[in-house]
Amino acid sequence: MNNFIWYNPTKLYFGKGQIKKLNYELKNYQKVLLVYGGGSIKKISLYEDVIEILKDNEKSFFELSGVEPNPKIKTVRKGIEIVKTQKIDLILAIGGGSTIDTAKAIAVGSVSQNDILDLLKNKYIQKEGIAIGTVLTLSATGSEMNPRCVISDDEAKLKLGLGIWEVPATYPKFSICDPTYTLTVPKNQTINGVVDIISHTLEQYFNRNENNIIGERFAETLIKTMIDIGPKLINDLQNYQLRETMMICGTLAWNGLLRGLNNNGDWASHQIEHALSAVYDIAHGEGLAIVIPAWMEYCAEKDPSKFVVFAKNIFNIKLENKTDQEIAFEGIKAFKMFLKKIGAPQSMKDYKIKNVNIDALVEKTMLGRKTIGQYILLDANDVKKILNIIF
Amino acid sequence: MNNFIWYNPTKLYFGKGQIKKLNYELKNYQKVLLVYGGGSIKKISLYEDVIEILKDNEKSFFELSGVEPNPKIKTVRKGIEIVKTQKIDLILAIGGGSTIDTAKAIAVGSVSQNDILDLLKNKYIQKEGIAIGTVLTLSATGSEMNPRCVISDDEAKLKLGLGIWEVPATYPKFSICDPTYTLTVPKNQTINGVVDIISHTLEQYFNRNENNIIGERFAETLIKTMIDIGPKLINDLQNYQLRETMMICGTLAWNGLLRGLNNNGDWASHQIEHALSAVYDIAHGEGLAIVIPAWMEYCAEKDPSKFVVFAKNIFNIKLENKTDQEIAFEGIKAFKMFLKKIGAPQSMKDYKIKNVNIDALVEKTMLGRKTIGQYILLDANDVKKILNIIF
Repeated sequence: MNNFIWYNPTKLYFGKGQIKKLNYELKNYQKVLLVYGGGSIKKISLYEDVIEILKDNEKSFFELSGVEPNPKIKTVRKGIEIVKTQKIDLILAIGGGSTIDTAKAIAVGSVSQNDILDLLKNKYIQKEGIAIGTVLTLSATGSEMNPRCVISDDEAKLKLGLGIWEVPATYPKFSICDPTYTLTVPKNQTINGVVDIISHTLEQYFNRNENNIIGERFAETLIKTMIDIGPKLINDLQNYQLRETMMICGTLAWNGLLRGLNNNGDWASHQIEHALSAVYDIAHGEGLAIVIPAWMEYCAEKDPSKFVVFAKNIFNIKLENKTDQEIAFEGIKAFKMFLKKIGAPQSMKDYKIKNVNIDALVEKTMLGRKTIGQYILLDANDVKKILNIIF
Repeated sequence: MNNFIWYNPTKLYFGKGQIKKLNYELKNYQKVLLVYGGGSIKKISLYEDVIEILKDNEKSFFELSGVEPNPKIKTVRKGIEIVKTQKIDLILAIGGGSTIDTAKAIAVGSVSQNDILDLLKNKYIQKEGIAIGTVLTLSATGSEMNPRCVISDDEAKLKLGLGIWEVPATYPKFSICDPTYTLTVPKNQTINGVVDIISHTLEQYFNRNENNIIGERFAETLIKTMIDIGPKLINDLQNYQLRETMMICGTLAWNGLLRGLNNNGDWASHQIEHALSAVYDIAHGEGLAIVIPAWMEYCAEKDPSKFVVFAKNIFNIKLENKTDQEIAFEGIKAFKMFLKKIGAPQSMKDYKIKNVNIDALVEKTMLGRKTIGQYILLDANDVKKILNIIF
């Protein structure tokens, strides 16, 4: 195994009715900024419950609503303004990854002397931040228990990441994860969540670490479980036990544990997808469902070894009398069948986009780097070929 | 799944040469108390390396050496005395579970108005403590990344636990886990470590939680991996890759992750073993190797259901044309064969102890509780029957 640091100070409250723990967590704070999206939290009465707890605990609070699915810098700036003028000491994100990511960017942007866009461009590491708490309503990004956030610079049409795994500033201090709040997530968002969770795990699974038995087996457990429950959940959206399993998989897929064991992982598919969804404003999960199979087919040609393990351990593909290439592509085919079965998109062709500028997408993927990826190092030419598969 | 809280603020530095990170971690502290055992850290030059780093960083330091395998209250009291008189602000434990456990008890004992014996008897929860750091030299207890410690009250012949999972006081702030330091661990201690790691995982595996797919699969990964590498390692003690795998398994077996997913687990075997090793001063791993199979046989008679899963998933026992009892006992037999294969003790008869007082052991196990365990609730009479199996 490569050396790694594993650090995660978030306190996770998992299960039914854990919202009551907010009473305990609020005791350290006086002024709260609620951050949320389009108002789905009002439909499930979560909004009212949180307001009641805030009032019971005599906290003053302010609100930033309308966080977009791919959250924008201007929304983060609005939040920073409120935090600074109202002297907020807790940012409470109620929602999914976009809402929580916005809270993280506000948290560090509010105490930095630098503009949030500079911070996002990674020119500065911000070690301090306003405290963040979350109430999760969507299983997907794992943002509830990690320090990362992705914000869209909509002027430059770029998605920019922020947050350092060893630095506490952008970790939520606490996250309340009650699967009940995800029972009403619509079908398309549920599909995207399933894809997102599997993709995070796959990115780490495809690595060049040696002797990482535990990292490999833990990743396979998450992938197999999501492949098992995904189709069931799509046809039974209000099933609590399936929602519960999806929620814990989502958190574990991207909270630093697999990252440490698996030497970070590949992440080329995510980098390609971030370019795609920055330009075309498609959902992250949709983009991943299209990019990952193309990435797999391209990379299995170069080195099928890990794809053989994937085919055998995830899909029980028989190995006898087959070449590694054949086994690898049987596994990839099975994975594509799974994506089709849950109703994930198959190709960018479905979006009927005109005048696609592949070179611009390559540039936004590479962002000045000579190569991306770990399992296979990809240069700009490789990325172009993968993009040509999907368009 | 039952509701759970997952919280673990320890920063883990894993891998070769991570001792250099001590330079970074020391920056917050001025006066260090080194805690270590019988001097094995001097044989592998780890002691010299740490002293050099302390001197390079101009820290003043004091030493508490000679921590026992089952650490005693009088040793903890010595440490508390040094911390108080010298105004120590970091306790640096270099060793295995006993050394780290001692550091934890010193950490909270030094700031409490109450005597350490009162704290250990759980009369008071201690929320603050002196900072703890660790350099791990033995894979076994998981103490490097959890808040628990076990100290022996040798006057009363009792083992007493301390440390709350939701309270940071007894978590190490950082732990340096370099498998290199475990390459010279002798065979008998390695055997005990293998047993200890498997036993921690088994205790959590046998639970009454519903729908805990991930908890079950993660636990099985650790158990299967340890059962695979255990015999190889016993015959190849200096194999770095095997030591590396054992070290990460040891940490993951008991750092709160499995505990949360698996609703804490059973732990009756540990409670029986703590009574045993408090009275007879045998190693914890030896006691567990004797108690667990007896606990298994006794409990599988009452409800074989989880033992069937254990037999199937850990040992690939075929299920066809067999009763649940038969499958369960085949699994238990396979586990006993494994323990024999690695050279773990089989029975308390091997120790040739005269005048065994079973009733006193029952009392020390129950400690006033009416029942212990979760998978099967055991009363004093059940515990007596299990003790009669092993003596």
